[in-house]
Amino acid sequence: MAIQVGIIMGSDSDLPVMEPAAAVLKAFGIDYEITVVSAHRTPLRMVTYAQKAKDRGLKVIIAGAGGAAHLPGMVASITSLPVIGVPVKSSNSIDGWDSVLSILQMPNGVPVATVALNAAKNAGILAAQIIGAADEAVYQKIAAYKQKMESEVLQKVERLKGAGQPNDFDS
Amino acid sequence: MAIQVGIIMGSDSDLPVMEPAAAVLKAFGIDYEITVVSAHRTPLRMVTYAQKAKDRGLKVIIAGAGGAAHLPGMVASITSLPVIGVPVKSSNSIDGWDSVLSILQMPNGVPVATVALNAAKNAGILAAQIIGAADEAVYQKIAAYKQKMESEVLQKVERLKGAGQPNDFDS
Amino acid sequence: MAIQVGIIMGSDSDLPVMEPAAAVLKAFGIDYEITVVSAHRTPLRMVTYAQKAKDRGLKVIIAGAGGAAHLPGMVASITSLPVIGVPVKSSNSIDGWDSVLSILQMPNGVPVATVALNAAKNAGILAAQIIGAADEAVYQKIAAYKQKMESEVLQKVERLKGAGQPNDFDS
Amino acid sequence: MAIQVGIIMGSDSDLPVMEPAAAVLKAFGIDYEITVVSAHRTPLRMVTYAQKAKDRGLKVIIAGAGGAAHLPGMVASITSLPVIGVPVKSSNSIDGWDSVLSILQMPNGVPVATVALNAAKNAGILAAQIIGAADEAVYQKIAAYKQKMESEVLQKVERLKGAGQPNDFDS
Amino acid sequence: MAIQVGIIMGSDSDLPVMEPAAAVLKAFGIDYEITVVSAHRTPLRMVTYAQKAKDRGLKVIIAGAGGAAHLPGMVASITSLPVIGVPVKSSNSIDGWDSVLSILQMPNGVPVATVALNAAKNAGILAAQIIGAADEAVYQKIAAYKQKMESEVLQKVERLKGAGQPNDFDS
Amino acid sequence: MAIQVGIIMGSDSDLPVMEPAAAVLKAFGIDYEITVVSAHRTPLRMVTYAQKAKDRGLKVIIAGAGGAAHLPGMVASITSLPVIGVPVKSSNSIDGWDSVLSILQMPNGVPVATVALNAAKNAGILAAQIIGAADEAVYQKIAAYKQKMESEVLQKVERLKGAGQPNDFDS
Amino acid sequence: MAIQVGIIMGSDSDLPVMEPAAAVLKAFGIDYEITVVSAHRTPLRMVTYAQKAKDRGLKVIIAGAGGAAHLPGMVASITSLPVIGVPVKSSNSIDGWDSVLSILQMPNGVPVATVALNAAKNAGILAAQIIGAADEAVYQKIAAYKQKMESEVLQKVERLKGAGQPNDFDS
Amino acid sequence: MAIQVGIIMGSDSDLPVMEPAAAVLKAFGIDYEITVVSAHRTPLRMVTYAQKAKDRGLKVIIAGAGGAAHLPGMVASITSLPVIGVPVKSSNSIDGWDSVLSILQMPNGVPVATVALNAAKNAGILAAQIIGAADEAVYQKIAAYKQKMESEVLQKVERLKGAGQPNDFDS
Repeated sequence: MAIQVGIIMGSDSDLPVMEPAAAVLKAFGIDYEITVVSAHRTPLRMVTYAQKAKDRGLKVIIAGAGGAAHLPGMVASITSLPVIGVPVKSSNSIDGWDSVLSILQMPNGVPVATVALNAAKNAGILAAQIIGAADEAVYQKIAAYKQKMESEVLQKVERLKGAGQPNDFDS
Repeated sequence: MAIQVGIIMGSDSDLPVMEPAAAVLKAFGIDYEITVVSAHRTPLRMVTYAQKAKDRGLKVIIAGAGGAAHLPGMVASITSLPVIGVPVKSSNSIDGWDSVLSILQMPNGVPVATVALNAAKNAGILAAQIIGAADEAVYQKIAAYKQKMESEVLQKVERLKGAGQPNDFDS
Repeated sequence: MAIQVGIIMGSDSDLPVMEPAAAVLKAFGIDYEITVVSAHRTPLRMVTYAQKAKDRGLKVIIAGAGGAAHLPGMVASITSLPVIGVPVKSSNSIDGWDSVLSILQMPNGVPVATVALNAAKNAGILAAQIIGAADEAVYQKIAAYKQKMESEVLQKVERLKGAGQPNDFDS
Repeated sequence: MAIQVGIIMGSDSDLPVMEPAAAVLKAFGIDYEITVVSAHRTPLRMVTYAQKAKDRGLKVIIAGAGGAAHLPGMVASITSLPVIGVPVKSSNSIDGWDSVLSILQMPNGVPVATVALNAAKNAGILAAQIIGAADEAVYQKIAAYKQKMESEVLQKVERLKGAGQPNDFDS
Repeated sequence: MAIQVGIIMGSDSDLPVMEPAAAVLKAFGIDYEITVVSAHRTPLRMVTYAQKAKDRGLKVIIAGAGGAAHLPGMVASITSLPVIGVPVKSSNSIDGWDSVLSILQMPNGVPVATVALNAAKNAGILAAQIIGAADEAVYQKIAAYKQKMESEVLQKVERLKGAGQPNDFDS
Repeated sequence: MAIQVGIIMGSDSDLPVMEPAAAVLKAFGIDYEITVVSAHRTPLRMVTYAQKAKDRGLKVIIAGAGGAAHLPGMVASITSLPVIGVPVKSSNSIDGWDSVLSILQMPNGVPVATVALNAAKNAGILAAQIIGAADEAVYQKIAAYKQKMESEVLQKVERLKGAGQPNDFDS
Repeated sequence: MAIQVGIIMGSDSDLPVMEPAAAVLKAFGIDYEITVVSAHRTPLRMVTYAQKAKDRGLKVIIAGAGGAAHLPGMVASITSLPVIGVPVKSSNSIDGWDSVLSILQMPNGVPVATVALNAAKNAGILAAQIIGAADEAVYQKIAAYKQKMESEVLQKVERLKGAGQPNDFDS
Repeated sequence: MAIQVGIIMGSDSDLPVMEPAAAVLKAFGIDYEITVVSAHRTPLRMVTYAQKAKDRGLKVIIAGAGGAAHLPGMVASITSLPVIGVPVKSSNSIDGWDSVLSILQMPNGVPVATVALNAAKNAGILAAQIIGAADEAVYQKIAAYKQKMESEVLQKVERLKGAGQPNDFDS
């Protein structure tokens, strides 16, 4: 199967934060690539990446960056594919506010689908949902994933009860 | 053609903020519906809306809300469709921070594709991009839209020059 | 005696933060239950919990959640019982601001009685005060608790003095 | 019937913000009083007000204040009744943050049930819910109020549809 | 000599933060007392402390508190002496913002001389400056202290130079 | 009588904000001067002002400034007199945060007695309290002023009652 | 003389904010150009502008942008010339914080010389100072400008005195 | 060669943060000095430093400071040389916001070229860029430095690929 999702990040130091996006896509059986594309250190590589994305078969791009995070917005300015932005709380960040605002507050005409701070896992799920909007098999996998999450919570409910925490509620 | 995008908002006072999402979809020839679904005043209507969305043929949901904005996240917790959240700067908001954080900071497993404060137009474009990920005709319309934006800027460049502002640069 | 207070939380990882609410109610002799109800992972369980709360005999609900914390507000949208919200500073939180604003900034018509960040103990006391508003025995226990707090401070005053810190004031 | 809710505010300039609390209580048929008690300009009046509240028959106190808002927390330090705090966005406030944090962030042992910025209406509803926790007639009035809110939203849904906004959803 | 400065704090857990105020006053030969006065746990002790302060001979009060920090402002509402407020970054604080705003943003008529977060040392110096405004001997001690600070910096300048850091500047 | 308080501000555009400081001192019969001293536009005038302040007979300096507000802290670095800082919300300010933090967050050794945003009136009262710490006549004027504030609130209480607002409380 | 400073902005709606940069440069006799270059709407024009800047003779680039402001940082990633960033408080901005943080918080290796919110005038002066670092004539003009600023303040001092504001200080 | 860049900081505790500025200049072969100049502890040394800077041959000044950071702005008020400000996140800082705003938000007429929090390395590069604006040899070194950064990213791209991370993109 062809690569459908490109996961890019501004620096390889963001890899531990971004890997859950890859893990989720793998679990959903969606092919992806993951590489470093820096808006500030390799601006021309970034332009080329965004320009070629559609023709290379990508359907969604996930871009993570920290501080003055320009990667998601700049890629979104060049491609017409949906771009998901992951604000990364990097070491030089002011509590993550800079990453969040630099990615979220895009001007009219150039949206970036922003997820929570460091929430690469959610970026992966969102990418799958975007593909699933037109691919029933992927949609069903997400629906199953949601049911599994629910079951896990219900198991925790039972475990808490078993541990002697009072609880009369049966849903 | 069937309705592909559902635009919902917590209150009809959000309509002026949310209408640009509808206008963009109209321009792209994508059928949509637009209605009020309040997480806090009609919670069961919200549950039903989210539960039926997929079977009703929706591919994307755009949800706008202000203050403690729970609508986008709650809809995303029930459906497996991609949900786009528009933080609305309502009158009782603390400078919009409450709307932004209530929508953006979703826990692992339940992403909301958040756009900028009041950026319903971008929500509409993002919905089109999501549909365009699997629909070449829509993709081409977005690509054309982006080129039109570029042309408009270049016209402004010329107008500025014509107004006597010095500028030697020819791109 | 019947369970009067329901303590719910979005995730069992919030248990260490929420347990002081239970401890306070136990100390006041008020029966409670404590369980996991996730707005985002078990939305229908949440709806049912809120719908049945009154008939199950609950008088107050304490709901704790972090990040985009929707649990307290959503429960409050369904039940007419008073709901106390505890903003939890979870690991993915932006310094707790997201939790605080998502719980506090509820729209007109659907209040949540919000306490300080991580202040589950105060949520327990507030629940007791709500019950004590119509139950003299509980009221007297709270009044006694307040006097005990005062005595403990006065003992610290003496201890400080005993440790040689100068202090001429006798209140 | 006796006065059950005391509504106090730091300054008569807060009256326009605080009056919706009174209006809600009036609508629910709950007797209230409304007066000025300033923590900073009449500290001893505040102490007496809080000390006598229980014996005067009050069941709940609603306190509104702006800036370094000490009134709700100080009243809560003296009485054992539940105290609801309304952060007021006064003219000298830093966007309301000072009022919110001064009221919300109470130390362990002395909770204030904080509502949203300027949300006196919600403070009135919360006071009614507290009384309704032990008074079935009041509880039913709140439940009816919530149903009325829901109906109003549904009427808006129809009005929007009537105005030509596309909407296929029947909840 | 009589006690001129009262140092009070909301909790003995604030003692490590507040002790530098005492140390500075000791170094300047100004008699002080240091004790716990809690606005929220011993409100009447606080009232009495503030009421008697002037007659007990105090000239300045230093009050430290964290979170919803009401102690400095409430003491200032009762006494006519100058009150210095020290915002303490306590464990339940939201990055110190709550302490700072609760102390700083006092309404017209009741100032609190606020110093930086945790800056008890500066509170001690400011208390000395207030006494020094009418006491030449104390003023001279502060002036000498400032000169000592300057000398220490100049010594560091030399040490840096000695460590091989290039520097041509002789002031 | 000699000038005891110097009121300085960074720009004459701050005059409307700063005049209440002068008005209060006038009402208390304390001689003052009021002039423009800009840290950034007249740095040497600022140095001289601070150096000569004590010898010119000043006892307190009130300094107001906005944005990156350096005037209060710089004056405090040169003189040993107490310096009161008034953060001014100037037109180029980011909601006043810049002014507040630039004045409040002084390093150890150089305190500035900071008052609330735009609170020049409180700066005037604080200056009077500092003088009153050693001048009984001034102290009594402040005490009388506080009583007048209290009376005014009590009159408002009566007026509210007269206007039909229910209130059973007699303090 | 050749154009030495390029002033670019993301949108012509930023022109009123950015024009003071041009005015200052004109006053200093430094040739400039001023045009629209949008990072998000004309990304390739931006790349070309930055790539050609040095060869076209530019010595400094001033870039203004609002919201998720990527223009200054992206230009700085491509050219080796000094880039001055002006955060613009645009209509969709969250109080300017997004513009400030998106421009200021650049990663190691790619600085942007950031000035205050909307401070295009200061951007113009800073550009002149950069040129003046190697051009004595320009340096002298800036020095003269600073003296003029000082004189204007001193005239205001006299005017205030003439208007009857008490002031004994002669610097 | 003569010293072209002065690196100053408010305290020697800022040395670890500021040293990367020196390291960068060394790498570019630009002579610098590095010393302590405290706005608050050695205000007159600061005045002299700024007054003599131009005649001593300096072309750029880099000033780092934390908390209420006045050093960069005060030096900029006295000299006409370009001043680069480095906000330092010192121990008593409120998450760095105080340092950032105290340095960035300078009034019209007195710019400070502000870099990111703790970004002394970028201050060094910016100083080199300022010198490089008129010194071709320095400009070429910066251009080479930028190319080296790009190469390092491309090597990381290969390393990631070598480690088995899927990536089909060849730029």
